[in-house]
Amino acid sequence: MIRTLTAFTLFALAAPVSAVTPALPPAPAPSEIVAAAPKADWVAIPASDLLVMDLTPPDRGPGQASTKAKPRRVTIQLMPPPFSAGWIGNIRKLAAAHWWDGLSVNRVQDNYVAQWGDADGEDKAKARALPGGVRVGDEREYQTTVNDVLRNMLGVDGSEEVEAVKSGMSDEPANNASLVRMLMTDPYASRTSFLEGWPTGFEGAGLSSRVWPVHCYGMVGVGRNLSPDTGSGAELYTVIGHAPRHLDRNIALVGRVIEGIEHLSSLPRGTGALGFYETPEERTTIISVRLGSEVSALPAYEYLSTETTTFARYADARANRRDPFFIKPAGGADICNIPVPVRRVK
Amino acid sequence: MIRTLTAFTLFALAAPVSAVTPALPPAPAPSEIVAAAPKADWVAIPASDLLVMDLTPPDRGPGQASTKAKPRRVTIQLMPPPFSAGWIGNIRKLAAAHWWDGLSVNRVQDNYVAQWGDADGEDKAKARALPGGVRVGDEREYQTTVNDVLRNMLGVDGSEEVEAVKSGMSDEPANNASLVRMLMTDPYASRTSFLEGWPTGFEGAGLSSRVWPVHCYGMVGVGRNLSPDTGSGAELYTVIGHAPRHLDRNIALVGRVIEGIEHLSSLPRGTGALGFYETPEERTTIISVRLGSEVSALPAYEYLSTETTTFARYADARANRRDPFFIKPAGGADICNIPVPVRRVK
Repeated sequence: MIRTLTAFTLFALAAPVSAVTPALPPAPAPSEIVAAAPKADWVAIPASDLLVMDLTPPDRGPGQASTKAKPRRVTIQLMPPPFSAGWIGNIRKLAAAHWWDGLSVNRVQDNYVAQWGDADGEDKAKARALPGGVRVGDEREYQTTVNDVLRNMLGVDGSEEVEAVKSGMSDEPANNASLVRMLMTDPYASRTSFLEGWPTGFEGAGLSSRVWPVHCYGMVGVGRNLSPDTGSGAELYTVIGHAPRHLDRNIALVGRVIEGIEHLSSLPRGTGALGFYETPEERTTIISVRLGSEVSALPAYEYLSTETTTFARYADARANRRDPFFIKPAGGADICNIPVPVRRVK
Repeated sequence: MIRTLTAFTLFALAAPVSAVTPALPPAPAPSEIVAAAPKADWVAIPASDLLVMDLTPPDRGPGQASTKAKPRRVTIQLMPPPFSAGWIGNIRKLAAAHWWDGLSVNRVQDNYVAQWGDADGEDKAKARALPGGVRVGDEREYQTTVNDVLRNMLGVDGSEEVEAVKSGMSDEPANNASLVRMLMTDPYASRTSFLEGWPTGFEGAGLSSRVWPVHCYGMVGVGRNLSPDTGSGAELYTVIGHAPRHLDRNIALVGRVIEGIEHLSSLPRGTGALGFYETPEERTTIISVRLGSEVSALPAYEYLSTETTTFARYADARANRRDPFFIKPAGGADICNIPVPVRRVK
């Protein structure tokens, strides 16, 4: 029943939020709204959906042993099915095979991406072999449909429940002017929304609407060669600059960095073409990449459900800053300027 | 006459570009369009409009003398009047007084800003005194009007020329579907455009339209305390993450980094509140900040005129990637995903 209710608000994102409609300054900052969210509004992220990458500690210079320093840990949340399921299946196989261990971050391009994998991947004689069962997916899987989302994420099917869900859908996301403006005003998609915690673009109407994850800061994608190649998932990147939304539906997105992105975003930029490092010494070595379920003493994480009134209030506050620093609320926001809150569970 | 023609296309951004209307893949990449731009499409940036900040070379660890390494140079282009003229006047005075020398980068917040100035600025007993003539501006100057832009940037006044310019203006930016969608589809402004090389937001119609610079990656702004303070320009920041457009019209923007932003964006993130460094040792020291006209052997720089057909083709190619890597052109772009090309003159 809760799942059905979730579905009702899913494509609507935000139900009318009467509590915030009268814009009475000063109002809580977005961070204050998140801090005050009830426990029930947070969703646990299963450890099995985490990918944990440990990088060697920073080099403190010749003669400075780095063995005492802690590894730099980057924690990634993988997307749920039906998004990019083929690539994410590959990534699980690669992690289980410890395939990335000893490889490196090979490319850091300012205001764009940091990318890791096999620096010799293009050289057939030197490339590390992929484990069995890793396959290259189809470009059609860069996007999915509302129908597939309902089946996979909500566990409902072509039944009464789907009809109920369908009747609850609307192209008008909310009876809240700023949220409508926010979600309908996107140069890259007919509309945008948050879907079970993920920023997504939409095109079309009803159950056959096409849905795809979008390239916000921190999202993780699959490097590939020219079409029709779609990449295996062995070569991954994360966004470290302004959202490169032109990559949406051109590359598979598989997750997002939820902790430790600064270990990638603050790396020295590569000076070669596309930000690749020109010498092996410049690369940062990967100690290990593991699925969270294989990592001991891993903290537990939660994200703020995007189907709650709290999230709608948070998004509204991001779009209309009324906390004391601000004098002119924007009246809108782009989807990548509303990062989904994630926290460690205490 | 050229100036009048510029004004004609100014608020229209892009005249219809028949050459690119039929979307025939494969087409040139944005970078290829820029590389092929005729010399006449490039506008020289006067050295007197540059602000050159040299940071100490990276610390290679204890005992590793950093005297051999070159300073890390960050080159900033200041905006032309009427934008933020008061603050930019202050910045010129501060640079002439060598005010920033020996101060530091004090704050680096991931996916947000890097900020520099006087770390003791909030402590009246320790703060470095500002040079004479530095004043704090008025919040109304966060935006200007089309009329003031015409007078200041184009040198035309309430004359026949203005009438001619006015008659050439339109709320419909171009007879090119993707460019229209791009420039009219913005959650933060009624429309966006490029104005003599700068990304701007608009509201209203005709000569009294309000115009303001927008917070794209690399834009430089003025730190301030709570309203009605607007800051002096002594405390500056640059955007190193997704465009924080909610700051538009809430803070004065004064320019953009045109070279060397990686020296700020790749600095370690501060671990204090708002990304401030918690200890003085973590800060990066500023060797000097000078106006370009005071710097010897400074390279010459040019930007690609945003009032040219070349720029319109470049923007269209950013919004509709048809170069071989792409399989699905977006059909639009947000203004911050169309960085204005800047180059060193050879």
